[in-house]
Amino acid sequence: MSSDGIREIGVGMLGYAFMGKAHSNAFRKIAYMTWPPPLEPRLVAIAGRDEAAVSEAAERYGFERWTNAWEDVVADPAIGLFDNLGPNALHAEPTIAAAEAGKHVVCEKPLGRDADESYEIWRRVAATGVKHLCAFNYRFVPAVRLARELIDAGELGKIRHFRGRYLQDWGDTAAEVWRFDRAAAGSGALGDLAAHVVDLARYLVGEIDEVGGFLRTFIPGREVDDAVEATVAFANGAVGTIEATRLALGRRNAFQWEINGTKGSLAFDMERLNELQVFQAGDERTRGFKTVLVSEASHPFWEHWWPPGHIIGWGETFVHELHHFLAAIADDTDVAPHGATFEDGYRAAEVCDAIVRSGQSGRREAIVYRTRGAD
Amino acid sequence: MSSDGIREIGVGMLGYAFMGKAHSNAFRKIAYMTWPPPLEPRLVAIAGRDEAAVSEAAERYGFERWTNAWEDVVADPAIGLFDNLGPNALHAEPTIAAAEAGKHVVCEKPLGRDADESYEIWRRVAATGVKHLCAFNYRFVPAVRLARELIDAGELGKIRHFRGRYLQDWGDTAAEVWRFDRAAAGSGALGDLAAHVVDLARYLVGEIDEVGGFLRTFIPGREVDDAVEATVAFANGAVGTIEATRLALGRRNAFQWEINGTKGSLAFDMERLNELQVFQAGDERTRGFKTVLVSEASHPFWEHWWPPGHIIGWGETFVHELHHFLAAIADDTDVAPHGATFEDGYRAAEVCDAIVRSGQSGRREAIVYRTRGAD
Amino acid sequence: MSSDGIREIGVGMLGYAFMGKAHSNAFRKIAYMTWPPPLEPRLVAIAGRDEAAVSEAAERYGFERWTNAWEDVVADPAIGLFDNLGPNALHAEPTIAAAEAGKHVVCEKPLGRDADESYEIWRRVAATGVKHLCAFNYRFVPAVRLARELIDAGELGKIRHFRGRYLQDWGDTAAEVWRFDRAAAGSGALGDLAAHVVDLARYLVGEIDEVGGFLRTFIPGREVDDAVEATVAFANGAVGTIEATRLALGRRNAFQWEINGTKGSLAFDMERLNELQVFQAGDERTRGFKTVLVSEASHPFWEHWWPPGHIIGWGETFVHELHHFLAAIADDTDVAPHGATFEDGYRAAEVCDAIVRSGQSGRREAIVYRTRGAD
Amino acid sequence: MSSDGIREIGVGMLGYAFMGKAHSNAFRKIAYMTWPPPLEPRLVAIAGRDEAAVSEAAERYGFERWTNAWEDVVADPAIGLFDNLGPNALHAEPTIAAAEAGKHVVCEKPLGRDADESYEIWRRVAATGVKHLCAFNYRFVPAVRLARELIDAGELGKIRHFRGRYLQDWGDTAAEVWRFDRAAAGSGALGDLAAHVVDLARYLVGEIDEVGGFLRTFIPGREVDDAVEATVAFANGAVGTIEATRLALGRRNAFQWEINGTKGSLAFDMERLNELQVFQAGDERTRGFKTVLVSEASHPFWEHWWPPGHIIGWGETFVHELHHFLAAIADDTDVAPHGATFEDGYRAAEVCDAIVRSGQSGRREAIVYRTRGAD
Repeated sequence: MSSDGIREIGVGMLGYAFMGKAHSNAFRKIAYMTWPPPLEPRLVAIAGRDEAAVSEAAERYGFERWTNAWEDVVADPAIGLFDNLGPNALHAEPTIAAAEAGKHVVCEKPLGRDADESYEIWRRVAATGVKHLCAFNYRFVPAVRLARELIDAGELGKIRHFRGRYLQDWGDTAAEVWRFDRAAAGSGALGDLAAHVVDLARYLVGEIDEVGGFLRTFIPGREVDDAVEATVAFANGAVGTIEATRLALGRRNAFQWEINGTKGSLAFDMERLNELQVFQAGDERTRGFKTVLVSEASHPFWEHWWPPGHIIGWGETFVHELHHFLAAIADDTDVAPHGATFEDGYRAAEVCDAIVRSGQSGRREAIVYRTRGAD
Repeated sequence: MSSDGIREIGVGMLGYAFMGKAHSNAFRKIAYMTWPPPLEPRLVAIAGRDEAAVSEAAERYGFERWTNAWEDVVADPAIGLFDNLGPNALHAEPTIAAAEAGKHVVCEKPLGRDADESYEIWRRVAATGVKHLCAFNYRFVPAVRLARELIDAGELGKIRHFRGRYLQDWGDTAAEVWRFDRAAAGSGALGDLAAHVVDLARYLVGEIDEVGGFLRTFIPGREVDDAVEATVAFANGAVGTIEATRLALGRRNAFQWEINGTKGSLAFDMERLNELQVFQAGDERTRGFKTVLVSEASHPFWEHWWPPGHIIGWGETFVHELHHFLAAIADDTDVAPHGATFEDGYRAAEVCDAIVRSGQSGRREAIVYRTRGAD
Repeated sequence: MSSDGIREIGVGMLGYAFMGKAHSNAFRKIAYMTWPPPLEPRLVAIAGRDEAAVSEAAERYGFERWTNAWEDVVADPAIGLFDNLGPNALHAEPTIAAAEAGKHVVCEKPLGRDADESYEIWRRVAATGVKHLCAFNYRFVPAVRLARELIDAGELGKIRHFRGRYLQDWGDTAAEVWRFDRAAAGSGALGDLAAHVVDLARYLVGEIDEVGGFLRTFIPGREVDDAVEATVAFANGAVGTIEATRLALGRRNAFQWEINGTKGSLAFDMERLNELQVFQAGDERTRGFKTVLVSEASHPFWEHWWPPGHIIGWGETFVHELHHFLAAIADDTDVAPHGATFEDGYRAAEVCDAIVRSGQSGRREAIVYRTRGAD
Repeated sequence: MSSDGIREIGVGMLGYAFMGKAHSNAFRKIAYMTWPPPLEPRLVAIAGRDEAAVSEAAERYGFERWTNAWEDVVADPAIGLFDNLGPNALHAEPTIAAAEAGKHVVCEKPLGRDADESYEIWRRVAATGVKHLCAFNYRFVPAVRLARELIDAGELGKIRHFRGRYLQDWGDTAAEVWRFDRAAAGSGALGDLAAHVVDLARYLVGEIDEVGGFLRTFIPGREVDDAVEATVAFANGAVGTIEATRLALGRRNAFQWEINGTKGSLAFDMERLNELQVFQAGDERTRGFKTVLVSEASHPFWEHWWPPGHIIGWGETFVHELHHFLAAIADDTDVAPHGATFEDGYRAAEVCDAIVRSGQSGRREAIVYRTRGAD
């Protein structure tokens, strides 16, 4: 219990780079922006391999202690929430250990390096009964949540099409980053970008039945894929495409999607994440896509922010996401459907694996999702 | 020879509906807008089934005579150019007959209802030695030609990605139109819309090696496809997607495509056909897509039009296209590469057929293009 | 009477340059695109100073004869409609003479070089009883007409704001054109561009009561203004700005305006003339400006054109405008309110003159409109 | 000195509403996002009238103590920086008192309720030698700073035009807020919105010589202006317009401006604050405005944030602004030119007053700026 009567939760983190900054910032802001916070995050410990970097991160973000051994964090009784932001190869073991030590767990996406590993993480963690969240943060963009609400309210009618593509353009870099290392990352654009597309496709449209497509590596000597191209068919009859690339020059973070239904359409671009394009069938005289600036008092998450029109940034998606997770812990409510659980993380991995298989087999691949009871 | 010393060419037309209006308008405008015209089109005869409609069209557009029998047009010695705008089922026989009667021939796309029929049209017509043009008019959008010129000049470097989609939204109509009739149309969104995407993909990126995908019919009882979803691989190594639908609410004529290369990117939307989005690698301080209003004196086709910024419409693509064809006749120059020949029409059909096969087989389909010599 | 039973009207034209091309094209297209045409224009005679140019124009556009003397055209009994596209200095005398010879008259904007001259043209022409049209063609953009219809239907409520600016960027040219010559043009950006803004302000919002502002010449040695800046107050209480410049680099033909009312807003840019931005107060969840592609069957002028989404160009505004004028002649209906009469041409000139006076006096200037009866 | 060796500065705040949230958030983020921070802000005390609200704000944002008397804050020896976010009527006295007590001072805009009051604040505060910042936070939007850098580098050439408008649409509300109260606010859209336009005009283009225009109140019974319309002339010869309104339906926070120079143009809209539209004269083949996503490592302020394309929000402008002020304190460097000093606050007020005078006099008004030495 903090001095102001709000219950605290100790946070332990693995990883201190880009995502460590994003999550630390979110935990700190939750304490005063989402007032009163469901739980007040106390930054207890941060783990990482590079001693200089992790100690600086601890000082900068205000963690009480740091360590080179993630096992210390997992074992720390002051910690109630373990947030795993390490390289993909370091997702499974620490996350499972933390859950088995009774900590609620957040794990960055992709959950594992493939469906098998993701399944194992989900199965083992779910068995412990802790709360789990796979950090598909784009579910927590206000415009994305609004899209979901409009779809749930039937405003699009029956969905026929989903077109999703995640375009970035840093793939020509010669920098040696773990994201190009197969052992560390598992895949390239597939797990990094296409997994986000798959997750939002599932969140907004529904379960995916079948995919056909392939991966492509353009850069000589690169171990992982630079691009993914796929067609997709959903259980509800909708069809479309899923694409991802790190080689679309001029597109910095262009996660773009469009959904067409029998009564309306939606379109979105992460580079303008405060906007949702909305088409509603109706008056023919003024028919057209609306550019909805998602910043009204009645819009998702906006109770935490500013007057209408004063837009928010990419970093705030983590505030929304981790706030949601803390609320689920505080009130013992479900992380789903708005938060991605480890089951969602696993299912996204099944779809990604099917694209890999399709690339190898040359066939469209049906997707069979495993259940927990199956083990 | 007309009174002003410009050589005339007699035009015979089959079809008087939407496309008849577009082509007639173009032939009339060529005579004074593209000054001096390569040949002055004289509208000699128009053929069609509905007597009232074809006679009104003749009067309205200024054809000297009309007929219910296309055979009359084909046989007419005053006619040097036969323009076939009939339903797809009426492409093969009249077009071949006209060519064999020594007339230069224009045929609306898709050339035939499938690859076999398209091949036959190409083979038979090419054997006659007349000029032939498959009316893929979007090659004659100034922004599309500019894209081709930029690509030819190496400004995009090596192309890696093509994403093309042609989205319309009139497919829910219950009107009985020949475009929904399998016998008349051969296919739905495939031949009507996806064929355009295939043609520009070939024109801008290069030959297509392989496709994987499927067609989908959403409207119960409809004989033809409403939508097409496909992945594509090009001979030069580029990869991407090809999509088409008549069911994307809010998209009226959204033929959108994006191309990414190693040095730059281009993007386009037919609903803003005067604009080309251009990204050129270079200065990092002001990196971004340029919205190029393709209306400068130095831009393709602009010598025929207005001062910069005074945009043109969709209808003018036919002026450019038929002007190009008349010039090829007048000067005995090649219709290719900027005009689509019947070989291009056939090759687009091979790609479309491969998507159909892929939908049936569940496999990615390699494409083998027939040559004329092979028959 | 032409051979098809449609009454003919003989057209005489003064001027053969940019505007001669635009108007000739329109007259020719009316004959078949606006079917059946209200009157079939017969291009009888064209006048101009440069013998080679005017004779080529006659041949190209199909005028039966040409002349160096506009008096010949005015006197020609075969001519029922005189279309004056000459330099501004040549608006008054030929236009008045033609009207007094009983011809219906079209005159390019600005009507005269100042309010006095414009008033004189209006007064003299109106006294003859012929139909008169001041060619403010932007009233005939479908999106502009739709804006007017929405306003007339009360969909914007009471209008509070008008912001209009006409931005071009060719003013740095050293070419010697009559538009830079004070004697020939009267003014620079004022009569050329700001007059269009004034006309649409009057057409869409209402009569202008008062302006404050000034002209500015940036280019040393230039006789006319390069830019105009003004505030404006309307009789109905709305307020706003009127701007025009030939020196806004990157803006080729950006006639942009926005109107805000108590119930909605509209915005427009001539560089995307097929689109109208529409904001309608209502549902807060999906509040935003709609991008309306003005190309539906129910939209203004669209009965003449193509299926939805197949956009038209700047040149078609003249088709709509001259079609409207021919219909007014054929049916003896009023040119107003949708067509600008010479009274509208005169009133725009009063507003422009008031801006000039304000620049000189340093004071906001009230505008007193003369009536015909007042002289 | 904090535990990590970074020097602390005690912060005292007056005001706890919208702006209190924005500034508190910024001070908290500076401590870890701008690493290492120039000074570590310690939130010592917050003052406000409403006891419940100010005590909750203190708890929420982590101030050590709260008070109803701003005099306590001004007198507090633990406080080195006084941040005045109170209503405009409460800007002068506390700010001057704080400065005279030796505290560095930040004051929200507008500095005073008119030029006289603003001048007095500037004069009195400047005499004390403390650092002072008038919180025109929009100078700290990355795209705005980039605009300034491009202009300073000569990339626009000589500036000819500035068009600035700040459009909001909440003015129809019947809520009784201090912003509608003349005694508390001084003015309406003028001080609230137009002052921002004036400040960026001065920051980007240069000193303003003359304005002509007027204020307008549309809502019956309202004490302050709803809208401002003005023309503007700059000392360097540029001309343009300044507009502001709270009644532009559909515009939530649309602070839009465009600048045209002899070599290029820039355009901006605060609703898309991560983007700068850049036109650079040059290659005619690909001429057009670039949409520059201002999020590169080399872009202003971006060293504090995320990878390219991961956009930031409106709230971060305060992080940049207060970071700049803390650095000026820490290093004893000038707040100007990038930060707005109280002199800038005063000068903006002179321009706003001149618009008021022009509205009353009906004359364009020249602006005479007072100097400190004049008193």
